[in-house]
Amino acid sequence: MKFIHTADWHLGKIVHGVHMTEDQRHSLYQFINIVEEEKPDAVVIAGDLYDRSVPPTEAVELLDEILYTMNVKMKTPIVAISGNHDSAERLSFGSSWYRHSQLYIQGRLSDSFEPVRINGVNFYLVPYAEPGVVRQLLDDDSIHSHQDAMKAIAGKMEESLNPNEPNVFVGHAFVLGGQTSDSERALSIGGSGCVSSDCFDAFSYTALGHLHSPDAIKNPKVFYSGSLLKYSFSEAKQKKSISIVNMENDGSFDVTYRSLSPKLDMREIEGSMEELLDPGFFQSQNVEDYLKVTLLDEGSLIDPINRLRQIYPNVLHLERKWDLIDSKRKQSFSSVKDEKKSELDLFETFYKEMTEREFDGLKRDTIASVIEAVKKEEAVK
Amino acid sequence: MKFIHTADWHLGKIVHGVHMTEDQRHSLYQFINIVEEEKPDAVVIAGDLYDRSVPPTEAVELLDEILYTMNVKMKTPIVAISGNHDSAERLSFGSSWYRHSQLYIQGRLSDSFEPVRINGVNFYLVPYAEPGVVRQLLDDDSIHSHQDAMKAIAGKMEESLNPNEPNVFVGHAFVLGGQTSDSERALSIGGSGCVSSDCFDAFSYTALGHLHSPDAIKNPKVFYSGSLLKYSFSEAKQKKSISIVNMENDGSFDVTYRSLSPKLDMREIEGSMEELLDPGFFQSQNVEDYLKVTLLDEGSLIDPINRLRQIYPNVLHLERKWDLIDSKRKQSFSSVKDEKKSELDLFETFYKEMTEREFDGLKRDTIASVIEAVKKEEAVK
Repeated sequence: MKFIHTADWHLGKIVHGVHMTEDQRHSLYQFINIVEEEKPDAVVIAGDLYDRSVPPTEAVELLDEILYTMNVKMKTPIVAISGNHDSAERLSFGSSWYRHSQLYIQGRLSDSFEPVRINGVNFYLVPYAEPGVVRQLLDDDSIHSHQDAMKAIAGKMEESLNPNEPNVFVGHAFVLGGQTSDSERALSIGGSGCVSSDCFDAFSYTALGHLHSPDAIKNPKVFYSGSLLKYSFSEAKQKKSISIVNMENDGSFDVTYRSLSPKLDMREIEGSMEELLDPGFFQSQNVEDYLKVTLLDEGSLIDPINRLRQIYPNVLHLERKWDLIDSKRKQSFSSVKDEKKSELDLFETFYKEMTEREFDGLKRDTIASVIEAVKKEEAVK
Repeated sequence: MKFIHTADWHLGKIVHGVHMTEDQRHSLYQFINIVEEEKPDAVVIAGDLYDRSVPPTEAVELLDEILYTMNVKMKTPIVAISGNHDSAERLSFGSSWYRHSQLYIQGRLSDSFEPVRINGVNFYLVPYAEPGVVRQLLDDDSIHSHQDAMKAIAGKMEESLNPNEPNVFVGHAFVLGGQTSDSERALSIGGSGCVSSDCFDAFSYTALGHLHSPDAIKNPKVFYSGSLLKYSFSEAKQKKSISIVNMENDGSFDVTYRSLSPKLDMREIEGSMEELLDPGFFQSQNVEDYLKVTLLDEGSLIDPINRLRQIYPNVLHLERKWDLIDSKRKQSFSSVKDEKKSELDLFETFYKEMTEREFDGLKRDTIASVIEAVKKEEAVK
């Protein structure tokens, strides 16, 4: 039995102000070509089909078009779950009607304990859920963290699954040991969102979504497929691919990878203005790519971004090496105490990283009073 | 052949700050009971299933539940179109999968010219569309108004339809001669949105949505079903119902009405504080109903709304008769010139009606400059 594992399409994503829909369409049609060639028995999409709970209508139309092509026209069974970026309710609207053509979109955790069986393989579809939701559903007050929640879910499945059959867990989680990129990091400050990979010991293969790199974790049975596209410059060096899993009746399997070539790559380049504007340098590359440029010139420059954009129209981010060294120097000053940072300092670091704007006195006071209020409330409990 | 005509469910509607979802659920289960009894060959929903393009998730879940019950469990074919309150793209996501169980949700006008045939009747499903969209789709530069657009759409259908078969037009429009209520009025200032009923002459029955009263129009072949519930106090005196249409093979038909009883009614009451708080008055009525109260007392009253709410918890709107007479007097002063009001004055009237707040100097200046800018732009064209 052969299935394709993919995840993190993030349809409707905007990167540095650029709508990625056409890039996504390009990669998804490549994906469809691979499905055409590989003829898998199923396609697994492990969450974050959309980038946000209310995606733009173009993203809605694109997903409809892609799923229709694969599922109805090409008659490929599809199993999918909602991720933390999807609205479970909106994504799974109409899912009862999709089942007749073997399109399974799982947004409701209560339905997860009955696997979807395709060609002898049992797929356990576990949409992303907050620990509080799992606590309520399983009526288990000991569930507080994502680790508790996942342990309980997988444990409940283990009670009823047949270990002599191939069982695939499909989930959307931050599994410990995974490498994070900027696009996920913001969500997992403090490690409270982490899940250990041994939760999935009972399963033959665990198909994960959430982390964007296909080699985010080294584990013989637990895998990320990685995202459809590079969605931040911290992913610039990753190779994006989809995983082709060939599974035997005893649950053993081998995995091969088919790479995806984006319409435009996301890359980082570095040099002086003169070097970067030299035809000898830029003629050998695709100047249309999405670029983060690090300028090595010292001193002031007149309108560097617009000069660069005459050659490289899609410069999304510009940095000066000097500025960078300056700010690193400032950072190292406080990094010794990083481990013991107060909530307010942590928030300040987070705010600056996210917005690249100053965290001034008024903002500081506002957040300080919010933190104070939360602490008071917790003390009362 | 028997079908049920309904429209304007407006799921997710908030009336004076009150979420109507539970009221809607109540009425929709009544609707389902009627479907159970009547056993129609089809249910027609003529637009505005949702109240807005991104409805709350509870509304999404309610629609899924109701359509699933009627279509899958009870095996009733359903034809539906998107109205001006729906997002056509979001509502029609997945519609390709629904067709196998005869659930047709039409959001794309380009698909409207091929009718859906159920038990010998051809349903032409025409989602709400702006004239500009129709102009582009039909490649006809003479289309400017809703009237032009509807004429062109119906005309194109007339070319190919078989007049010897029963043909039903399903549309969402403001058909001339219809009575408006506050919930629709705001959209049609100036009459540019109107469509004349003779557009539909070629059809046996025209099933409309948009106006909320079942007797909004007197025409032997063109009908509104009215909305599921009363959605404004201007609808307080309307009887809400659904239309049961029995159609013969030659397209002749008779219509009967089944009324819907809301969970809570929406009513207007009037009297002095003393009268309204007298048990002899309120004990004979459902004090839980949604109420607009007009107080007849003169002079000042201490906290009248909270005193009323001790008896009538769902007072949504409170008016003083005196205030009313005062403001009517003011209005009549300017009404002579109503026909020649400037854009700014028209906007002021509209603003006051919608918000019940003052249109002060700053607001006036802002809107004046916007109108000025638009006029300049139009002058340039």
